[in-house]
Amino acid sequence: MTPDPAARAGAILEIDLAGIAANWRLLARQAAPAQCAAVVKANGYGLGAAPVARALAASGCRMFFVATLDEAIALRRALGEVSEIAVFNGPLPGTATEFVAHKLIPVLNEPGQIEEWAAAAPCVLRDAPRLRRDAPQDEDHLDLASKIPPHPEEAAKRPSRRTRRRLSALRESPSRAPAILHIDTGMARLGLDAGEFAAVVENPPPFAWRAVMSHLACADRPDHPLNQSQRGRFAAAAAQLPGITASLSASSGIFLGPSYHFDMVRPGAALFGVNPQPGRPNPLRQIVRLSGKIVQVRQIDRGESVGYGAAHIMEAPGRAAIVAVGYADGWLRSLSHRGCGYLAGTRVPLLGRVSMDLVTFDVSAVPPALVHPGAMIELLGADYGVDDAASDAGTIGYEILCALGSRYHRIYRDSPDLSGINLPE
Amino acid sequence: MTPDPAARAGAILEIDLAGIAANWRLLARQAAPAQCAAVVKANGYGLGAAPVARALAASGCRMFFVATLDEAIALRRALGEVSEIAVFNGPLPGTATEFVAHKLIPVLNEPGQIEEWAAAAPCVLRDAPRLRRDAPQDEDHLDLASKIPPHPEEAAKRPSRRTRRRLSALRESPSRAPAILHIDTGMARLGLDAGEFAAVVENPPPFAWRAVMSHLACADRPDHPLNQSQRGRFAAAAAQLPGITASLSASSGIFLGPSYHFDMVRPGAALFGVNPQPGRPNPLRQIVRLSGKIVQVRQIDRGESVGYGAAHIMEAPGRAAIVAVGYADGWLRSLSHRGCGYLAGTRVPLLGRVSMDLVTFDVSAVPPALVHPGAMIELLGADYGVDDAASDAGTIGYEILCALGSRYHRIYRDSPDLSGINLPE
Repeated sequence: MTPDPAARAGAILEIDLAGIAANWRLLARQAAPAQCAAVVKANGYGLGAAPVARALAASGCRMFFVATLDEAIALRRALGEVSEIAVFNGPLPGTATEFVAHKLIPVLNEPGQIEEWAAAAPCVLRDAPRLRRDAPQDEDHLDLASKIPPHPEEAAKRPSRRTRRRLSALRESPSRAPAILHIDTGMARLGLDAGEFAAVVENPPPFAWRAVMSHLACADRPDHPLNQSQRGRFAAAAAQLPGITASLSASSGIFLGPSYHFDMVRPGAALFGVNPQPGRPNPLRQIVRLSGKIVQVRQIDRGESVGYGAAHIMEAPGRAAIVAVGYADGWLRSLSHRGCGYLAGTRVPLLGRVSMDLVTFDVSAVPPALVHPGAMIELLGADYGVDDAASDAGTIGYEILCALGSRYHRIYRDSPDLSGINLPE
Repeated sequence: MTPDPAARAGAILEIDLAGIAANWRLLARQAAPAQCAAVVKANGYGLGAAPVARALAASGCRMFFVATLDEAIALRRALGEVSEIAVFNGPLPGTATEFVAHKLIPVLNEPGQIEEWAAAAPCVLRDAPRLRRDAPQDEDHLDLASKIPPHPEEAAKRPSRRTRRRLSALRESPSRAPAILHIDTGMARLGLDAGEFAAVVENPPPFAWRAVMSHLACADRPDHPLNQSQRGRFAAAAAQLPGITASLSASSGIFLGPSYHFDMVRPGAALFGVNPQPGRPNPLRQIVRLSGKIVQVRQIDRGESVGYGAAHIMEAPGRAAIVAVGYADGWLRSLSHRGCGYLAGTRVPLLGRVSMDLVTFDVSAVPPALVHPGAMIELLGADYGVDDAASDAGTIGYEILCALGSRYHRIYRDSPDLSGINLPE
């Protein structure tokens, strides 16, 4: 017995790490002189946050964004100390101290998160020699936190002598627990509204801003008027925080032109080959190849029905290949009747409905010798990319990527050289 | 710092193990005297194959089905030796010996899989005293396998003396490596066609059949003529394998009546609360509750747009709650503009598009004191079940379950008592 994960798996997912790194470099050149971060939330858009981020770190990326605290803790483990890690969703109630412990940068989206951070972030100053000398010996960090006024406005209005000492210490080591300020400019999702932002500018909280950011709602449609309006609002806001890194654009925003780049860009989907400019040539490399294994080949007569609901009726006799991939693998059920695969360069249409663990292709056009159990049908690759599958499924490439299943055997190809960078084993 | 996975997570998924066990008992009563197996493929329809199967084993289930070899190996680890485990996709090329090693029952779907099994299954007879006495000492199991004729027909046509000895040993211990024979009766997916089945009946392969099975294509539509036709074909085929357990029906088939039960039924989705009879009252318990955490609450003016593509315009001023669940969590993007949640018993419509990590609900109708960061909106539960979400997403409950995300904090409730059964730790 030779256990072989590739033999056991119903499909093989190959991920081109060199391609991801090349895409990052292309985006970084496009955005230069702005810094180019990388968004690896949702487990690196389904492709594995740890291997992807390590490859990008080796290529020079020094700022990563994830969505949640759990993702950030896992990424910190994979990256060690080589890079900054920021968390879009910010500190959910009761979690701020975990951000501090793992040296994570929260994105602060609303006043409550700013309060959470104001209460928790100064705790780390216990380790700062200046504050330790000032603080009474019996004061532990919880006491310290509880004695800090809960709202930064309040703290700024009537600072006590102790608060003044603490703020002074913070100004001297502002990088110890920095945060990113998120302002909403028209997405109406996360971020401070205009009034909340004005309050923060007037009464700065007792910690440093690593950056100020916003997010475009329609960046994939260059002509949408909301782009300019969001850009204008963001520029005006950023001007009120001089010297702070400003970041507006994700993948598509980078291609709206230099006036959208500010100091830092945050590409995600484009790293993984999703076209940031729908309807135009894609400047980025496809980096996934998904190959599904044929379990069985069958002859089907004219008039016979195929699959669940007898939803497909054969108009002519044909051969069908049943492949071990289904909607439980994220091969979305909305690809029923519409998707396709490729076998030896020939397009093979998807027949009937996608089942949970299986999908059927019409392989009548392929020479029979090439179609047998164990042979592979390409479900994603050069001929049929992530955006093509998305179009057939009535969704966007982002969802196709994030849905990529956990039963696939994953092979990471062509990792950049990691030896020149100090990453954990 | 008190690390708390529930505090870190953007959503909590509660899984009612007692409810799953109760659903299995209801289905078992409905199908009695047929044996009631349980299908826990696709990681137990997204809910965790190991905890689900352990709860069902403690409730008396002794036969489990999964889709793939990897799933079966993991399930064997969770169940120990207390139950049979069968694998729908059968042995992919080169994997038959792993089935033997983990004592798994393959479903054999096509002639090549029967050949694979005929070649691999007799290997285990090395351990049988009778065969070991007969076999030369220097013959290892690979040699043994290679000397067995590759095709069972061939073996039956001109059996050598050694083959006759082997077949005799098999007949005396037929349970050592049994398989399930899958015949197609109108699904045109996996399974032998009529001609292939006739060949198997005429020339039985050198191993025992644990069961013969088929699968209904339209069982959720009781009036569909294909049901009766498949039942008839299956009954005729099973009659040619007298004494072998016959199994036709999955969840919906159980409710087509006793003539569809045969000797064993194989419910999957119904265990997890999906209605096996769409359009009729659901006799099964809902067993999942998904609660998404509010990250931010915002006031939105009349005429403002919400989310990506500015695809939703507020017709009146309102309050929106942004929840830390998105399509990367399997909250399908096709729920955009159509889904809903529940907060304190009030329906809160989903606003705009589902994003990768976030979704927005209109909470204008909920008393403001109940809507704050950290408060939970119920996305699946008593008010809005798996089938409701499926209907809004244009899919079936099966896909909603399988897509349930890996970022959710999972809580298993009310496990049946496992102490009376010999399960691994």
